[in-house]
Amino acid sequence: MKLCRFNAGRIGIVRDDQVTEVMIGDHSDEAMLALLQGGQMPLASSAVGPLSGVALESPIQRPGKIVAAPVNYRAHIEEMAKNGQAFGHVITDLKKAGMFLKAPSSIVGPSQGIALRFPERRTDHEIELCAVIGTRASKVREQDALACVAGYCLGLDITLRGPEDRSFRKSIDTYTVLGPYVVSADEVSDPQAIDLSIRVNGELRQHTNTSDMVYGVAALISFTSQFYTLQPGDVLMTGTPQGVGPIVDGDLIVAEAPGLGSMSVRVRTAA
Amino acid sequence: MKLCRFNAGRIGIVRDDQVTEVMIGDHSDEAMLALLQGGQMPLASSAVGPLSGVALESPIQRPGKIVAAPVNYRAHIEEMAKNGQAFGHVITDLKKAGMFLKAPSSIVGPSQGIALRFPERRTDHEIELCAVIGTRASKVREQDALACVAGYCLGLDITLRGPEDRSFRKSIDTYTVLGPYVVSADEVSDPQAIDLSIRVNGELRQHTNTSDMVYGVAALISFTSQFYTLQPGDVLMTGTPQGVGPIVDGDLIVAEAPGLGSMSVRVRTAA
Repeated sequence: MKLCRFNAGRIGIVRDDQVTEVMIGDHSDEAMLALLQGGQMPLASSAVGPLSGVALESPIQRPGKIVAAPVNYRAHIEEMAKNGQAFGHVITDLKKAGMFLKAPSSIVGPSQGIALRFPERRTDHEIELCAVIGTRASKVREQDALACVAGYCLGLDITLRGPEDRSFRKSIDTYTVLGPYVVSADEVSDPQAIDLSIRVNGELRQHTNTSDMVYGVAALISFTSQFYTLQPGDVLMTGTPQGVGPIVDGDLIVAEAPGLGSMSVRVRTAA
Repeated sequence: MKLCRFNAGRIGIVRDDQVTEVMIGDHSDEAMLALLQGGQMPLASSAVGPLSGVALESPIQRPGKIVAAPVNYRAHIEEMAKNGQAFGHVITDLKKAGMFLKAPSSIVGPSQGIALRFPERRTDHEIELCAVIGTRASKVREQDALACVAGYCLGLDITLRGPEDRSFRKSIDTYTVLGPYVVSADEVSDPQAIDLSIRVNGELRQHTNTSDMVYGVAALISFTSQFYTLQPGDVLMTGTPQGVGPIVDGDLIVAEAPGLGSMSVRVRTAA
């Protein structure tokens, strides 16, 4: 099942790029996850039209936390070391570096766009595979970890470069874009075999396959859950591949992955 | 007004160390903040007994985010540099270092205690003055910032020392203790004139006055809100003074501040 949020909080099922609005008890993340995991049936539904005709919002609105991997593709680690964008942040093995947090208040959907808060400073796009947690996970083993995932979506981890703590400069309002919809885990046969790409104004900037991750989704969940409990609705961002680059006012970002869909996100300067 | 949560989700008003349970529409953080800010009246109330006889939980249960200052007392900055506990984390001016996030899933109240997840690694107590945001704050000026605060409470920022990202090693389950209750802002005449102290097994470990902060509450809110929006219920932890030190299984921590109350927190090894 593919579930989207659109047009100011409405919830839809996406099939063949057509949206059918569904009515459920409430529109919380919890209710949406219950629908995604088959624990709830819609009360009613009605056809809306093509996905391209709706204003897409983030499928997950208020996760308890967003947990992200700082370095998880080998080629991106080399790139960061080479181009001097590390700003003294030590780039090491992820298990030494630990995961970082992004503020839930930074979340937007594709239609809301990215508002550059410091247009005079370098701000980069980072595409990531995101896993939405469906089941409480504490100290889970790697072989049990994927059973904790409710679904997957695309994410942009927009990153202000500079000396500040990662959890600060990556948490600016609009700097986490989730979408275009969340795909239930049963429709993703292997999260480590997904082609991710991002184009800026038509130019291919990042293109890789999740098979190139250092630690796969299961390993990340297992590792993270040794430190703290992952709760239903939490979003795990699995790190970005090589090819990160700056975005500026007016850019159009298109992120896509077969099976997870495509999302177009406009960049502007914050008011 | 002083509001506590106790005995599995009940809400109480604290007067002269006596608890009166109050009934409000629901027990969300939003409803509690409305009561604290005078926007809601209790539907009913009944005397419970002395504060010392109830099991105190965190007054704020599910903030959108916990924002914390990494370095904000001069003597603590010197101490960190001297004792080699910085682990390569660059200690600089807070405005360069930026704020960091702690996971809301790490929150407990005093009665729930601290469960050491890695007892073989050094884990420190850090006492902090916490401000609970009551009004949405985006790009606020310093002179307007205190008007965004609904109330204040004590916080323990329990810290696993090591190389990992701050937002990871400080977000372990039970590593954010809030309590004993939240005091409405109108009862705190000057947040920069509060004596904070922490004792471990009776021994005084940290003792300072918030007048020693590098950036006061208003400056922290103003600075943080230049990066992202602070929302009602968000918790701001204002940094810890000198005297941080290790805690071990069996320790009893007592944190207190005149006007904000006293809380006793037991340390155990995680199951």
